[in-house]
Amino acid sequence: MQPFRFLKEAGRAVFQDRYVKRASDMLREWDGKDGGSIGIIGVPLSKSSISHSGAVFAPGVIRKMLSSYSTYSIEEDIDLLDSVITDYGDIVMHPTDIVESQKRIAETMEQLVVVHPDALLIVLGGDHSISFPAVSGFKKRWKKIGVIQFDAHHDLRNLEDGGPTNGTPFRNLIESDVLKGSHLIQIGIRDFMNSKTYTEYGKEHGISIYTMKDVRNRDIKEIIKESVQQLEKEVDAIYVSVDMDVLDQAYAPGCPAIGPGGMESASLLDAVALLGEYDIVKAMDIVEIDPTIDFRDMTSRTAAWVIMQFLKGKKKAGWI
Amino acid sequence: MQPFRFLKEAGRAVFQDRYVKRASDMLREWDGKDGGSIGIIGVPLSKSSISHSGAVFAPGVIRKMLSSYSTYSIEEDIDLLDSVITDYGDIVMHPTDIVESQKRIAETMEQLVVVHPDALLIVLGGDHSISFPAVSGFKKRWKKIGVIQFDAHHDLRNLEDGGPTNGTPFRNLIESDVLKGSHLIQIGIRDFMNSKTYTEYGKEHGISIYTMKDVRNRDIKEIIKESVQQLEKEVDAIYVSVDMDVLDQAYAPGCPAIGPGGMESASLLDAVALLGEYDIVKAMDIVEIDPTIDFRDMTSRTAAWVIMQFLKGKKKAGWI
Amino acid sequence: MQPFRFLKEAGRAVFQDRYVKRASDMLREWDGKDGGSIGIIGVPLSKSSISHSGAVFAPGVIRKMLSSYSTYSIEEDIDLLDSVITDYGDIVMHPTDIVESQKRIAETMEQLVVVHPDALLIVLGGDHSISFPAVSGFKKRWKKIGVIQFDAHHDLRNLEDGGPTNGTPFRNLIESDVLKGSHLIQIGIRDFMNSKTYTEYGKEHGISIYTMKDVRNRDIKEIIKESVQQLEKEVDAIYVSVDMDVLDQAYAPGCPAIGPGGMESASLLDAVALLGEYDIVKAMDIVEIDPTIDFRDMTSRTAAWVIMQFLKGKKKAGWI
Amino acid sequence: MQPFRFLKEAGRAVFQDRYVKRASDMLREWDGKDGGSIGIIGVPLSKSSISHSGAVFAPGVIRKMLSSYSTYSIEEDIDLLDSVITDYGDIVMHPTDIVESQKRIAETMEQLVVVHPDALLIVLGGDHSISFPAVSGFKKRWKKIGVIQFDAHHDLRNLEDGGPTNGTPFRNLIESDVLKGSHLIQIGIRDFMNSKTYTEYGKEHGISIYTMKDVRNRDIKEIIKESVQQLEKEVDAIYVSVDMDVLDQAYAPGCPAIGPGGMESASLLDAVALLGEYDIVKAMDIVEIDPTIDFRDMTSRTAAWVIMQFLKGKKKAGWI
Amino acid sequence: MQPFRFLKEAGRAVFQDRYVKRASDMLREWDGKDGGSIGIIGVPLSKSSISHSGAVFAPGVIRKMLSSYSTYSIEEDIDLLDSVITDYGDIVMHPTDIVESQKRIAETMEQLVVVHPDALLIVLGGDHSISFPAVSGFKKRWKKIGVIQFDAHHDLRNLEDGGPTNGTPFRNLIESDVLKGSHLIQIGIRDFMNSKTYTEYGKEHGISIYTMKDVRNRDIKEIIKESVQQLEKEVDAIYVSVDMDVLDQAYAPGCPAIGPGGMESASLLDAVALLGEYDIVKAMDIVEIDPTIDFRDMTSRTAAWVIMQFLKGKKKAGWI
Amino acid sequence: MQPFRFLKEAGRAVFQDRYVKRASDMLREWDGKDGGSIGIIGVPLSKSSISHSGAVFAPGVIRKMLSSYSTYSIEEDIDLLDSVITDYGDIVMHPTDIVESQKRIAETMEQLVVVHPDALLIVLGGDHSISFPAVSGFKKRWKKIGVIQFDAHHDLRNLEDGGPTNGTPFRNLIESDVLKGSHLIQIGIRDFMNSKTYTEYGKEHGISIYTMKDVRNRDIKEIIKESVQQLEKEVDAIYVSVDMDVLDQAYAPGCPAIGPGGMESASLLDAVALLGEYDIVKAMDIVEIDPTIDFRDMTSRTAAWVIMQFLKGKKKAGWI
Ligand SMILES: [Ca+2]
Ligand SMILES: [Ca+2]
Ligand SMILES: [Ca+2]
Ligand SMILES: [Ca+2]
Ligand SMILES: [Ca+2]
Ligand SMILES: [Ca+2]
Ligand SMILES: [Ca+2]
Ligand SMILES: [Ca+2]
Ligand SMILES: [Ca+2]
Ligand SMILES: [Ca+2]
Ligand SMILES: [Ca+2]
Ligand SMILES: [Ca+2]
Repeated sequence: MQPFRFLKEAGRAVFQDRYVKRASDMLREWDGKDGGSIGIIGVPLSKSSISHSGAVFAPGVIRKMLSSYSTYSIEEDIDLLDSVITDYGDIVMHPTDIVESQKRIAETMEQLVVVHPDALLIVLGGDHSISFPAVSGFKKRWKKIGVIQFDAHHDLRNLEDGGPTNGTPFRNLIESDVLKGSHLIQIGIRDFMNSKTYTEYGKEHGISIYTMKDVRNRDIKEIIKESVQQLEKEVDAIYVSVDMDVLDQAYAPGCPAIGPGGMESASLLDAVALLGEYDIVKAMDIVEIDPTIDFRDMTSRTAAWVIMQFLKGKKKAGWI
Repeated sequence: MQPFRFLKEAGRAVFQDRYVKRASDMLREWDGKDGGSIGIIGVPLSKSSISHSGAVFAPGVIRKMLSSYSTYSIEEDIDLLDSVITDYGDIVMHPTDIVESQKRIAETMEQLVVVHPDALLIVLGGDHSISFPAVSGFKKRWKKIGVIQFDAHHDLRNLEDGGPTNGTPFRNLIESDVLKGSHLIQIGIRDFMNSKTYTEYGKEHGISIYTMKDVRNRDIKEIIKESVQQLEKEVDAIYVSVDMDVLDQAYAPGCPAIGPGGMESASLLDAVALLGEYDIVKAMDIVEIDPTIDFRDMTSRTAAWVIMQFLKGKKKAGWI
Repeated sequence: MQPFRFLKEAGRAVFQDRYVKRASDMLREWDGKDGGSIGIIGVPLSKSSISHSGAVFAPGVIRKMLSSYSTYSIEEDIDLLDSVITDYGDIVMHPTDIVESQKRIAETMEQLVVVHPDALLIVLGGDHSISFPAVSGFKKRWKKIGVIQFDAHHDLRNLEDGGPTNGTPFRNLIESDVLKGSHLIQIGIRDFMNSKTYTEYGKEHGISIYTMKDVRNRDIKEIIKESVQQLEKEVDAIYVSVDMDVLDQAYAPGCPAIGPGGMESASLLDAVALLGEYDIVKAMDIVEIDPTIDFRDMTSRTAAWVIMQFLKGKKKAGWI
Repeated sequence: MQPFRFLKEAGRAVFQDRYVKRASDMLREWDGKDGGSIGIIGVPLSKSSISHSGAVFAPGVIRKMLSSYSTYSIEEDIDLLDSVITDYGDIVMHPTDIVESQKRIAETMEQLVVVHPDALLIVLGGDHSISFPAVSGFKKRWKKIGVIQFDAHHDLRNLEDGGPTNGTPFRNLIESDVLKGSHLIQIGIRDFMNSKTYTEYGKEHGISIYTMKDVRNRDIKEIIKESVQQLEKEVDAIYVSVDMDVLDQAYAPGCPAIGPGGMESASLLDAVALLGEYDIVKAMDIVEIDPTIDFRDMTSRTAAWVIMQFLKGKKKAGWI
Repeated sequence: MQPFRFLKEAGRAVFQDRYVKRASDMLREWDGKDGGSIGIIGVPLSKSSISHSGAVFAPGVIRKMLSSYSTYSIEEDIDLLDSVITDYGDIVMHPTDIVESQKRIAETMEQLVVVHPDALLIVLGGDHSISFPAVSGFKKRWKKIGVIQFDAHHDLRNLEDGGPTNGTPFRNLIESDVLKGSHLIQIGIRDFMNSKTYTEYGKEHGISIYTMKDVRNRDIKEIIKESVQQLEKEVDAIYVSVDMDVLDQAYAPGCPAIGPGGMESASLLDAVALLGEYDIVKAMDIVEIDPTIDFRDMTSRTAAWVIMQFLKGKKKAGWI
Repeated sequence: MQPFRFLKEAGRAVFQDRYVKRASDMLREWDGKDGGSIGIIGVPLSKSSISHSGAVFAPGVIRKMLSSYSTYSIEEDIDLLDSVITDYGDIVMHPTDIVESQKRIAETMEQLVVVHPDALLIVLGGDHSISFPAVSGFKKRWKKIGVIQFDAHHDLRNLEDGGPTNGTPFRNLIESDVLKGSHLIQIGIRDFMNSKTYTEYGKEHGISIYTMKDVRNRDIKEIIKESVQQLEKEVDAIYVSVDMDVLDQAYAPGCPAIGPGGMESASLLDAVALLGEYDIVKAMDIVEIDPTIDFRDMTSRTAAWVIMQFLKGKKKAGWI
């Protein structure tokens, strides 16, 4: 008899069905060299939020939620089992210097896209402030980039009143000349969650805005197709930024800024799967989940599905 | 250097974006004289509930939730920023005499509509029992009134078994000759939440009843148009009573009597915005939210949107 | 004056409206003899779950939730008031012998269907492992049976890796020759919640699988009609197994294995009401509700509605 | 083989150790005639509370907590197994007439002490307002009564400002001439929880007041002995009123009015056991537990122990 | 009849007993001029915490908890009713610049002590990082100051690894020459909550350290007397810093860094009351309460008592 | 500049103070060979509990809580920094065969003590049922063993009624001749938590029983000394079994069977540190923590301290 045959490393002694692989099994800790075709990176920053936010914990929880799901899509008969996601780990944040933390994000993103220029990147926030440095770093790899942002909010606040908060990333990208307003598409913008000033700023800068009324009245897939067609004429790569508060509070109870009138999760999942099918879509971030106020990690569970849908689209189209 | 330049009144030291106004900024504490065109009043009564209810806390929480939202509807390009809502405050309830509390509601409502006959009134319950005195007081201003009630329940219980509870307000209005049954329209009545006796009572008294089957199978806006057209032939003013439990438990987890099979919040929000467009609609109450059992004040957040949608409709139609 | 006129048995001193009957008033404790036309039985077993589960508490909570609802369907004008549900009580589980507990379920179900061959049976789990012994016992009454399973998962795991868990009941039924694969219909199977191996097992054994894509794209009533038509050609009785996790996490937050992408509760309620209309549908179980992690017993409330819808269908079709 | 050998009445299918009796097994539902030597009665009233309170649920929860404990005191080698507690059930409260509810308490208590003059009575509140009618009814059996009150608060508020709330019972008893101030002993009165006006009222009326400073500096048993010796010279029977908020918030987290600086539960348990040993102590109430805000029913668990300690004292002294 | 006689400003319609004043009634909003003899100021900063902390909310919650208590100490027969506490409000923090926020604290504290040199100051954190700027500002008023710190931790971490976090305030004060190590007394330092390096740093710098072993084995009042006697020989003013995590987790469940082995709240309350009696004690802060993770605001309730005890001591000794 | 200088392995990007070591840093994952002088092993079994228990999660949570504490005891000036604890990981439990799970525990413990005969072993339950196989395995190393059990309960239930549950481990050890009754010492046994039958069983078998009355009236250290002195005359090794429910519910809110009247955590911590000082004490288990119902992992935090106290005692006495 084999000795100690029932011992497993702490935390690993859970039930294992020999025929079941978990989505989290796709993750491979980065060895410092090989990047593979898909990478994931955690950005545990939420001190930059205007309101109190525990989004710092989201990278860990989203990864953990991947272990609740399998790699197989029965709807499309696609199995992601053999796909490998390089897990680059998390970026260390500075305890008392938020701007330094954001610089670390930009530096790390830049290094990643330079070293692994062909990798598809999935960035786990953190609050939405991280999209400014993340996109800035990502830009180093491409001449022109576009962004498709799912969000209830414009995130175009002025930078004077509070610095680079989670209300400002797209303003910051535009004013830093990283992103042209006309290369930004916002989907899911909601009533009573934005001030007219910033809507006007968006229009003046040529941002394409699809409000929730558009989402309710049209097929989300049509909006996505229209958006990609518009961008692919002008940019080299598209970065998708998914602020989970684009969803209705019934579907994403764990975002700091919840409310009624938002998207159903089915629409977002459809949209992301379709985005995955386009080769030009090269990166995605998922932000604004505060696990400390969520119910049973519902919002992180949906974030894990957003990742899976994105990869399902990539696999379906043959990009991975 | 200005001394004490960073001090703000306790509780006010929160982030302020110079270009953002909150919906709560529309509120002006009543100065005892001027009523303005829109008024809001809190009715913190829930000891009248059949089951244990903390709806007493809803007026405070709904007001607070207004501060989470802006005044701007991007969907309609309507900004309520310049609208002023006179906040009359709350009515003091008696700790041990529930009927006395209800008399105070009626007296206060009567005085309000007499002193400010042109004001649009928004009443924040409390449980549904408050609609009996609130509508009774409101009636003093008009010859004939109609009521459109959103509710999973008829609220037509007999008054002998428990007095004027939250199960009885519309029975009480009918039997007190404040409201004719044929001037009452109930929308969203649900299976397994009413007894046949009271449905029959409703039919005998000419109440128009739209069940959830009607809501699922028809366009809610058609139901609203039909309802207003029916009432405007016969009454001078319409009072809208919104029992938040008309919503499905997924959308209104904080009502005492939750269950499946209810309305989605998008339908209610559409309905209320449309009601706001009719000049004949003069008042609205929002009841049956118990913040002590809600999840992240979701139900109060939706109540705040109900107010905003109502005013958006009023603004759109030019009434405010 | 009658003495002690205000005393009621402990726990019964709640408000009683003389015209209102509760759904729970249909329940009659079994007298050990008469079974009546409808029976209900609790199976408090969840130690058999792969993951930690408190589904052991669901039978009690679902019964309690019946007391929150009435017997009257206003949508169909059907009152179940005079229907009697014999409550057989709960099956005593063994504290440390799970297989023994499952044997007790099989033995009890077999005795019930033998002694009361015409009774409609409603089984309250517990986790899904109980469907193996419950269907096995139920089978004793019929030559050939079919099963319609609502579930996000196949529950066709191999039995070697963990024995008769909640991941295995339908595999176990097929391999025990209780049920032919071609007599099993699975509705609501979801992406990322199953491994390809088990989908293939299902297909090889002739199981009919409707994924969530089917549910989203088709009318659920058509799926039900198609399913019953297929089965009624080949079997004598249909057992319906409702794993509540077929619902989206927004609608069934209290299931152990929650996630996005699931069914809305309205669809499930419609489906079950329609199933009730078929005479061949003779039994139903409701499983996988863990009240210890639910929000305000929402999932048990929906389970109570599933029972009511089932009986509404039966009553509508004249079977009870 | 016995058929249906594993079926038990719903809710009863729990583990039973043949050698273990639960404290709840002492309860016998009242048959309408025989009262026995110990009675228990529930008073589910908390609408009378100044602040929102769910103490209405405490009678049910305290009874349930008795099932978590056994009848055996190993410390004293006393087994209460053979003691029978007649459970008179709960008094039905009026949904909208609080004063009527209090009259029902008084009427019921009076009838109980008249019909069962020798029974020891344990009254489960509810909020502290119930002690006014409960003691008033109890008084009918005796010429002169004394009260020993455990409480952080005097409960001597004026009756004009809010009627018979939970802040007034002892004021009400004194002003109704049911109780002389000098026959009232208050133990555990705390800093910052009372106004000086009422302390002075207490002193003027001859109430004996032991503050928490007394409790901290002296042996609680000495205080009890001193109290009983003082009262037994002057009264025929002592009623003990246990407001659980006499305990520190660490020990009674489920009282509406919690705070630091209170008694440890060991002191209260010692005090009550000793009180039980005196024949002159004839009744006890336990009030001010709100199970809806408690943590794991800790406060009701302690209430169940208060009952057991009281009976342990009675048994030790041979009175039961 | 007076019109609108039952209307009160929103949120004020609560029960009022004419003879009861609340501790919060002592607070007077600052008029920008008069400082009075006692001042309170909120410092909503917790982004500086090493671990995620919601201490930003504590100033608001502690103020609110004052409304749960009265002004009267029955133990000492001292009523603080006539004392006035000038509420200077809260200091506005910068959303993304933590060091700037700390500068604002220092500037504001300095201005306060300069403008109101005789006022007793109570500072409500926030995390413990605020004590560095708060004491620095306070120092401007005095030649030499001493600090008595209640804490489980030394808070003497190096400043290189994370900047001015909540682990560093006393290190920072010493290294900035604001405070001499020998003028710092730490009480309640606990096992397994500090590294030996920092204990040694403390000893090398002459800090007086009383561990929990000292607290358990000695009378806390003796420790306080000894501490003040030591300091009053050398300094002009003593600042008391109360990190609520000095308490055991059973008594202060809402601190970020909880654990067993801590002080009972009675000891802390005794200590603070005694400190209040010394004229040389001129200021106090209360830090490290995170209301978002507390149970029923227990820790903030105790903080409110800390304030009351401090003022009780001051009143007893005749300083206010 | 070093590339990727801010990247850390997922979950590791937390603040690190260069001078602080965490207690969890003592843990070294077992390499399959070297056992070292101290070992820890997780036993995630709680399906064996009489009542629903999530103690299966305790090994993971207790380990995690070790990371909240440092290695340094300031009270004793002992630093455990250089001590290494070999973490053997967790024993894999069988999903549906509880007795098999218990056999795996016994087998693994036996192999551990045979292979590493000199190691001090710390076993993390799980429920108390694990002590039967754990002690049985441990026994293989010694001729005669003694057990000191901290518990509110005897755990001497008969084995017929439910098999080897968490109510039976010490009965099972006695009846299996692994342990003599006279070699078992129970400390903390409480009123109303045991039946007289089992107390008598304990006395008949010579078990030494210290009730909570003994604990309250005596110095816990005297009880420990007395206990060890009694055992060391008769046995070769002592196994300490710490059922955390020996603590009062205020100190251990996360045990399944909570109640008042228990030990304060300071007493338990003192007792365990003293036990650690005896060379004859060779192993310890910690059981009955259900993290799913705890408050902020308080009970697991105390368990982590129990481990640290035990090792502090060992270090103090020079055994490690
Ligand atoms: Ca955003
Ligand atoms: Ca957003
Ligand atoms: Ca209603
Ligand atoms: Ca309703
Ligand atoms: Ca299933
Ligand atoms: Ca399932
Ligand atoms: Ca009281
Ligand atoms: Ca009290
Ligand atoms: Ca500190
Ligand atoms: Ca600290
Ligand atoms: Ca035990
Ligand atoms: Ca125990």
